[in-house]
Amino acid sequence: MPAPDDVYAACCPCRDMLDLLANKWSALALGALEDGPQRFGALRTRLQGVSPKVLTATLRRLEDHGLITRHIYPEIPPRVEYTLTALGHDANGPLSALRTWVESNIGRFPSGRETSDVSA
Amino acid sequence: MPAPDDVYAACCPCRDMLDLLANKWSALALGALEDGPQRFGALRTRLQGVSPKVLTATLRRLEDHGLITRHIYPEIPPRVEYTLTALGHDANGPLSALRTWVESNIGRFPSGRETSDVSA
Repeated sequence: MPAPDDVYAACCPCRDMLDLLANKWSALALGALEDGPQRFGALRTRLQGVSPKVLTATLRRLEDHGLITRHIYPEIPPRVEYTLTALGHDANGPLSALRTWVESNIGRFPSGRETSDVSA
Repeated sequence: MPAPDDVYAACCPCRDMLDLLANKWSALALGALEDGPQRFGALRTRLQGVSPKVLTATLRRLEDHGLITRHIYPEIPPRVEYTLTALGHDANGPLSALRTWVESNIGRFPSGRETSDVSA
């Protein structure tokens, strides 16, 4: 019987949160927003290689889970900015540690065979 | 111009590593192996909800990148065990912090709209 809050339990809400945070684009988007509020175009430039569709879905999901807010300024053309919430800021603690660990330990990884996407 | 080791740079090998580690199933599989070597069936039971196909691909990818080893014992029927390497053990530091953060902060998340998969 799993503990009430157990990421290994398929039915636990924690699993959804781990799925959300243990995700390359979520981790990169939250990290980018540590620098302050940003517009979609700036985030797209920062997260090299992300498609507009995936970035849109990532930001929507982070917003739905209270990690970022989306603010529309009534200008012409409208300006839309994304900002970290306190929860998103706190989530950056462990995510930042993971990003830093990868950057610090990259030399220890063998080149490996061609990777395949197993995120399905 | 990105730093030489920069997870935000699409061409940096770090991005591949972040993609590998910032992945729900990788994070759960590496954590499960902290308890010691395990067989495929035991891992499949521990990672509730994982399909055999995705677990196979996840373990293969972790093996290719030097995070786990796969040992076949010449028994009948053959016994196959997966074991953490030193690198995999070290990677569990930040991943364990992420799993623990999620379990500790689950109450702070709004229930949110239905999540959609953005991991593609």
